[in-house]
Amino acid sequence: MLRTHTCGELRNTDINKTVTLCGWVQKSRLMGGLTFIDLRDRYGITQLKLSSGNIEGYGRECVIKATGKVIERESKNKNIATGDIEIEIEKIEVLNRAVTPPFTIEDETDGGDELRMKYRYLDLRRNSVRKNLELRHRIAIETRNYLDKLNFLEVETPVLIKSTPEGARDFVVPSRMNPNQFYALPQSPQTFKQLLMVSGFDRYYQIVKCFRDEDLRADRQPEFTQIDCEMSFIEQEDILQTFEGLVKYLFKTVKGIDIPDLPRMSYADAMKHYGNDKPDTRFEMKLIDFKAIASGANFKVFDDAETVIAICAKGAAEYTRKQLDELTEWVKRPQIGATGLVYVRVNADGTIKSSVDKFYNEEALKKWAEACGAEKGDLILVLAGAEEKTRKAASELRLEMGNRLGLRDKNKFSCLWVIDFPLLEWNEGDPNLLASLAGRWHAKHHPFTSPKPEDIELLNSNPGAVRANAYDVVINGVEIGGGSIRIHNKDLQAKMFDILGFTKEEAQKQFGFLMNAFEFGAPPHGGIALGFDRLCSMFGGADSIRDFIAFPKNNSGRDLMIDAPSEISEEQLNELNIANVIKKN
Amino acid sequence: MLRTHTCGELRNTDINKTVTLCGWVQKSRLMGGLTFIDLRDRYGITQLKLSSGNIEGYGRECVIKATGKVIERESKNKNIATGDIEIEIEKIEVLNRAVTPPFTIEDETDGGDELRMKYRYLDLRRNSVRKNLELRHRIAIETRNYLDKLNFLEVETPVLIKSTPEGARDFVVPSRMNPNQFYALPQSPQTFKQLLMVSGFDRYYQIVKCFRDEDLRADRQPEFTQIDCEMSFIEQEDILQTFEGLVKYLFKTVKGIDIPDLPRMSYADAMKHYGNDKPDTRFEMKLIDFKAIASGANFKVFDDAETVIAICAKGAAEYTRKQLDELTEWVKRPQIGATGLVYVRVNADGTIKSSVDKFYNEEALKKWAEACGAEKGDLILVLAGAEEKTRKAASELRLEMGNRLGLRDKNKFSCLWVIDFPLLEWNEGDPNLLASLAGRWHAKHHPFTSPKPEDIELLNSNPGAVRANAYDVVINGVEIGGGSIRIHNKDLQAKMFDILGFTKEEAQKQFGFLMNAFEFGAPPHGGIALGFDRLCSMFGGADSIRDFIAFPKNNSGRDLMIDAPSEISEEQLNELNIANVIKKN
Repeated sequence: MLRTHTCGELRNTDINKTVTLCGWVQKSRLMGGLTFIDLRDRYGITQLKLSSGNIEGYGRECVIKATGKVIERESKNKNIATGDIEIEIEKIEVLNRAVTPPFTIEDETDGGDELRMKYRYLDLRRNSVRKNLELRHRIAIETRNYLDKLNFLEVETPVLIKSTPEGARDFVVPSRMNPNQFYALPQSPQTFKQLLMVSGFDRYYQIVKCFRDEDLRADRQPEFTQIDCEMSFIEQEDILQTFEGLVKYLFKTVKGIDIPDLPRMSYADAMKHYGNDKPDTRFEMKLIDFKAIASGANFKVFDDAETVIAICAKGAAEYTRKQLDELTEWVKRPQIGATGLVYVRVNADGTIKSSVDKFYNEEALKKWAEACGAEKGDLILVLAGAEEKTRKAASELRLEMGNRLGLRDKNKFSCLWVIDFPLLEWNEGDPNLLASLAGRWHAKHHPFTSPKPEDIELLNSNPGAVRANAYDVVINGVEIGGGSIRIHNKDLQAKMFDILGFTKEEAQKQFGFLMNAFEFGAPPHGGIALGFDRLCSMFGGADSIRDFIAFPKNNSGRDLMIDAPSEISEEQLNELNIANVIKKN
Repeated sequence: MLRTHTCGELRNTDINKTVTLCGWVQKSRLMGGLTFIDLRDRYGITQLKLSSGNIEGYGRECVIKATGKVIERESKNKNIATGDIEIEIEKIEVLNRAVTPPFTIEDETDGGDELRMKYRYLDLRRNSVRKNLELRHRIAIETRNYLDKLNFLEVETPVLIKSTPEGARDFVVPSRMNPNQFYALPQSPQTFKQLLMVSGFDRYYQIVKCFRDEDLRADRQPEFTQIDCEMSFIEQEDILQTFEGLVKYLFKTVKGIDIPDLPRMSYADAMKHYGNDKPDTRFEMKLIDFKAIASGANFKVFDDAETVIAICAKGAAEYTRKQLDELTEWVKRPQIGATGLVYVRVNADGTIKSSVDKFYNEEALKKWAEACGAEKGDLILVLAGAEEKTRKAASELRLEMGNRLGLRDKNKFSCLWVIDFPLLEWNEGDPNLLASLAGRWHAKHHPFTSPKPEDIELLNSNPGAVRANAYDVVINGVEIGGGSIRIHNKDLQAKMFDILGFTKEEAQKQFGFLMNAFEFGAPPHGGIALGFDRLCSMFGGADSIRDFIAFPKNNSGRDLMIDAPSEISEEQLNELNIANVIKKN
């Protein structure tokens, strides 16, 4: 070792020891003919004291090796763990010089996003970013500890697999040895973990990279990591218990927080009360159906609307006209899509004042207030329009009001299960799917999800009404993971492929191996996958996953640091039996 | 849970309990009007006893759920852990039927390699294969335990990176969002782990998938797993200590074996004594230089040869003429490439008999025996020819004789470090490299390996003589891993790229991010990567890695089970801006 100690470990009890430290110069300064250097490594910062007043050569981010005696510091620094001591340097050596970094290596940096991604290796020097990755390491370790104790086996599934573009788009890999054929990178190890159940592995897990060639919206990454699990001879209740246990264990061991048992909410209730299948339950402010109560007063907007929904924002009656106008503009943004916003102030003095006083007298409005539990000082907000759009807008408005009223504390955690999802959804055309897949039923979860036995007979008559044995774990309004009980019967699986628009031949070609496997004795099984990047950012109290990934890509899927993707040589293309197609504009 | 217990846990102490088990029918048989079923799961086998004599429906590999009372078995089975009891069945249900598997689900199966790979999910049901993957899980867990205690952080590095075809060929991934550009899959996370050191992560590890598009020789896989590690502020000695510690820890915790400290052998000594940079040191039989002792007797074969090498096979003097002829044919095979084999029998009665008695009298041969420590009963085998070829052939012959004499016991482990590797090797043309890379110096380890400081001045005058700060860990003649101290100086790194035939522009384009990173304060650092698949197969006492990988590919890089790679649609190709090139024959 070039050092005897790290920069984070020396204390009062080490005084008079001769030590050697290595690290980076956080800062150096001259004072009274002496030079003081803050030397930094992953473990902390230690102050070096040089009797020479020559500060040159010890600029920011230089790599230094210094030997000296631990002495008591005259003016102690209570902000750092080594603040009681400093090192009286006898010998100092510059191991590597550094040019000035393009941004400051501090918790709050002056570097913009793109610059930080280009120099990611410098960004990772920042305490705040490194701590995120240390947290990630800790969560991974504890996840493994928990699952290992429950007899789960970690099994690595292959990365070079087969393209089955029924979910999002696959990334593909041309095979040099098999001309004009391609591997695909897995969107998840779904079929493999099911095959492991057919193999009798009983309990499987993996913390595994997955890949999706999506148009990247905010905070998606083309490669992401999931905690992937599967169990045999279980029912839905067992999965919920086991992974509720994991969530609680992680909160306890990593964050020291006791999380209560996770409540369960049906998909139907989530949509009804929150307009959202991943409700943020840190706060109430449920969606109230106002259609009946608000109709028949000759207010055409409500009378003609398919749906009228109200929310009650506690304590927001004092919102000014300006604030309400601004909120109205906010709901009319294309991302939210409402046509307008009706408000009712339940004032502190008991009077009620609304933007629709022309149509509703105080008595009517009192009934509104009653209907949504509004008390003095509360603000009722009402949206109207087509069902799906209005419910979605009401959900967005609820979350926005939650933000504005400070109800979404990042240090408070509210977890729940959403269950009883629909099995299928109609796909009109999704930009993340191949065009040829539009105008079909799609699996809401994936094609291997089992319908609820009591709904199976609806598969032919009313596919949209069939509920699945599927469940999501939601924390603070974010879907952290989801899973399902799988189909383990060959005929039912074949029927699912049929409903999803696969011909028998396509189904056989793409998933024949799975259906064949089911002929040799498949056990009842099910599982779950948790988004590991998202879980880490949630635990870290951050909105973005990017700073919980060591080397993330930007929204165009580029790694700005290594400048990838990039062109490859003609020789490589030739060997792979492919050619670039230059599209005409 | 569908079961109350697994098939491996019931004992005498459970007698009279009512239990429910689930599993697969290992076999069923009729006896005295009763039906006996061996029910199997991952944890073991339990005998079910049915009062009905109806065996139909309970065929091999059916999935069954059975409830009944634990009773004492009349004839106990000492071969299985549950052999004291059986279950008197009250209720039995077939959860899934099974057609007859294409091979038997037994430790010794009747299935051939290709069949087993096609039905891998059935092969994985076999105890022997599943145990391999359980071993793999255990080694991964213990590896993480060891490194976690030493403050290593597990950091995930990206899978979609940049093509740098200086090692083996890269697998590439066309980018839909960046037309005519490609990602590459990593051959190792080398540059990323070095950047993590520049970031001050200090100690990094990852158990990580890597990819190489090689022509697959026996027992190579296009995707493989390595234990990848890097440390800062260390010297070679620290890496050797740390990972020698890991090897010893794994042997102790996983296999219960105490491994002595790893001896160290220079590359030069390994080549001299074993003709091989990964010597199998389970047995001696060193290569002896016979050129001086065997020259000058008018035996043209030896006189004209650049190199004459002998090995002494202990106790093999009784080899018959037929065996020796067969051995001669063996060394003449193209894979070995020797032109012939000279033998000397040191008989039990003290007489010496050789195949070259015409040229060497007994006195001369006695000197030979002395030179290679041959005693009564030993057999001396001598090869001659060009240096490199002969040394390689002698190494192969040594290993073959080791096999024939039973000196390569799979349950005996001999570990060592090979150190002081050459930095560079001349590449005449390697089928695993692009043609454009032939006729150049190549990095023996990789381009980031540091030369020994005392050899740096030879970089210009005699590149082939420069030794590297590089090291391999070798177990039983297999290179389990290797690493090096890295270059952390920008100018030296640039010089290496220059020697390796990169123009300044190429080096900047491919590795600019790393050389730029070195400008911002790179610490001295080094690391190692251990082949995880190989380590597991070594621990499992097997030659092949294939059965230590859940879903391996065959020698054409195909997954026979899912039938990948496969063709993709024109729509997918179009979106990716590539076209298949159909080569004319």
